[in-house]
Amino acid sequence: MPRIVQKYGGTSVGDVDRIKNVAARIKAFRDEGNQLVVVVSARAGVTNELLARARAITAWPSERELDQLLSIGEQETIALTAMALQAIGVDAVSYTGAQAGIFTDKHHTKAKIKTIDARPIEKDLEAGKVIIVAGFQGINDEGQITTLGRGGSDLTAIALAAALKADKCEIYTDVDGVYTADPRVVKTARKLDEISYDEMLELASAGSKVMQSRSVEFAKKYGVIFEVRSSFNTNPGTLVKEEVSYMEQVVVRGVAVDKDQVKIVVSNILDRPGSAAKVFRALADANIIVDMIVQNVGHQGVANLTFTVPQGDAANAVKSLRAILADVGGGQITVHEQIAKLSVVGVGMKTHSGVAAQLFQALAEAGINIQLISTSEIKISVVIALDRADEAARVAHAAFGLDKV
Amino acid sequence: MPRIVQKYGGTSVGDVDRIKNVAARIKAFRDEGNQLVVVVSARAGVTNELLARARAITAWPSERELDQLLSIGEQETIALTAMALQAIGVDAVSYTGAQAGIFTDKHHTKAKIKTIDARPIEKDLEAGKVIIVAGFQGINDEGQITTLGRGGSDLTAIALAAALKADKCEIYTDVDGVYTADPRVVKTARKLDEISYDEMLELASAGSKVMQSRSVEFAKKYGVIFEVRSSFNTNPGTLVKEEVSYMEQVVVRGVAVDKDQVKIVVSNILDRPGSAAKVFRALADANIIVDMIVQNVGHQGVANLTFTVPQGDAANAVKSLRAILADVGGGQITVHEQIAKLSVVGVGMKTHSGVAAQLFQALAEAGINIQLISTSEIKISVVIALDRADEAARVAHAAFGLDKV
Repeated sequence: MPRIVQKYGGTSVGDVDRIKNVAARIKAFRDEGNQLVVVVSARAGVTNELLARARAITAWPSERELDQLLSIGEQETIALTAMALQAIGVDAVSYTGAQAGIFTDKHHTKAKIKTIDARPIEKDLEAGKVIIVAGFQGINDEGQITTLGRGGSDLTAIALAAALKADKCEIYTDVDGVYTADPRVVKTARKLDEISYDEMLELASAGSKVMQSRSVEFAKKYGVIFEVRSSFNTNPGTLVKEEVSYMEQVVVRGVAVDKDQVKIVVSNILDRPGSAAKVFRALADANIIVDMIVQNVGHQGVANLTFTVPQGDAANAVKSLRAILADVGGGQITVHEQIAKLSVVGVGMKTHSGVAAQLFQALAEAGINIQLISTSEIKISVVIALDRADEAARVAHAAFGLDKV
Repeated sequence: MPRIVQKYGGTSVGDVDRIKNVAARIKAFRDEGNQLVVVVSARAGVTNELLARARAITAWPSERELDQLLSIGEQETIALTAMALQAIGVDAVSYTGAQAGIFTDKHHTKAKIKTIDARPIEKDLEAGKVIIVAGFQGINDEGQITTLGRGGSDLTAIALAAALKADKCEIYTDVDGVYTADPRVVKTARKLDEISYDEMLELASAGSKVMQSRSVEFAKKYGVIFEVRSSFNTNPGTLVKEEVSYMEQVVVRGVAVDKDQVKIVVSNILDRPGSAAKVFRALADANIIVDMIVQNVGHQGVANLTFTVPQGDAANAVKSLRAILADVGGGQITVHEQIAKLSVVGVGMKTHSGVAAQLFQALAEAGINIQLISTSEIKISVVIALDRADEAARVAHAAFGLDKV
């Protein structure tokens, strides 16, 4: 009997009626003769409600208590989903993260899964039950409840698929799959039938909101093939899997825009060994993830460092930089908020040359100025003006032939 | 260092501001040099909200899934309360029922506590922490979450007080303590300084809403002295403890009215051995708790059986009785809804005679007709017309001198 792990996100189980819909879908899969393990998120909005209540009590809630609090969101959904299944004649049973044997390290609010003791689930599967598991949560060796951070429910599903040696893993969400670009911006965007882990990772880091990188990384590490598809229809979605050679025939798989970054310029710092290290050490110590980095050539003993950070970290970044500014020669810090990052991603780049040139040419023809460039083996990113970002996405999408089927 | 177990009910932790108030109170007790274990309920209304959501999905949710669902109410409160304490500088840590080692039997929605493994709490107490425990919930041997039924949070507090050998157990609620009668009905009602377990039990079964019988029974069994007091002021409350001889000097400790019963008469059933047994077996099989029972003397081979059941069980009781009516001679079933049960309770009755006569006399003088009578060693209950119930309470309260200090 095929074994499937499915995951339904917060929108899919957003209220009682949607939970009933999800239950009906699960029953249909069960009736086709599948063993089913279903991971659900908290109802959309619940996690934010709980966070707001915590913040009304204290600006700095302890992370252990936050996990104790936030984990109830998924615990509600698993119970309601199991009830909805039982109501239509399906023998279902709910599992919290702890009950599902999902053991994590001790890092509250961003725990890593260490191991899964799948024996209780295996036993219930053999008994013919449909298993409903709370996403996003686990338990550490001391019996404390932990949560897995953003995108944690996807991670739960993929980790369970690996532990249970599932035949399929399906991530149900409010979009039909992974697109060549955001369809709200690029009308001609197409849904991809498949994409490699690496392309998916680069798209995630490039600002595509479909999934968090860590879930994709986990899937890649354990070879879990998964499908991203919609919980509101029965259309096939996008299969995410290891790269195969024919994928390289497509040079660019997709285009992504990230409007959530700011550009910071530290100018006139001393052009000597250690200056850049001091700057980025200060940012790392403040837990700020720096994305694109460019240092210009030194001139008269001073240089400029330019990089991007997430919008939410900008104030903190500036604060951290001020503290070390004297050490690096006391330059100036400028923050540019009106920027966006445009990325094109594709494993085909590895074997095709001139991709960067093609992108720069297309943008130049549209009169869009490039402020920063960075590249990886399968991605090219540029920073451009925020108000040209959507246009740039359409230009790049067309330039690489993504409009055509 | 004195060790205190406190319990705060749903009204006391009803919203963020009240949780902060409770935290401030707990801090004050801690600062007086006490070890504190605090049991909290779900925020008032939350359990009903969750139940409503379950019933919107199915009229018959499974009890296991109900427990999985309902337990999140208290889990929210413990996390928020611990956060509120941390915010004012108190080292607090929250425990779910499972984390607190509260092991129960397998009876979902009405589990019994079997044993408490208090070692984790002892360890945190020794480390100087204030412990916040989720009331109403436990875990069974299979790792399933169970709940303890109505009044379960009181039970958690009393059971923890026993397991931790606490010096005091304080049940904080929205009333000042146990009164000689309901102060909303009897203006001259007084708060009692102390009351025996047995009197408290009889008051509970007589319709006084302060606490459920099972918590009092548990306290009696394990000799846990507890105090019922208000979470909104610092007035001393009522101490509930083993009966001591001076308590018998007071003949009647309190008066209670239960308006939540109906009277059912099964008339003209065959007056032969086994008829009554069949009637009450049918009710017991339907899980209906019968309170007062009177069988009149047989006459021409037939008899009448009269008893009271909770209002909510009336329809079910009639249905069960119809099924066996032919077996007992096919009499008639009549339901009387406009009744109330008045009870007077006091350990002093055991050593004072004429208490019943004094009650009947007082009611007769007020022109209040008595429909049924039942007595225990320390309680006399009568069924009267619903519209005379409040007046009857005032009459009885005065007749036994409870108005006077």
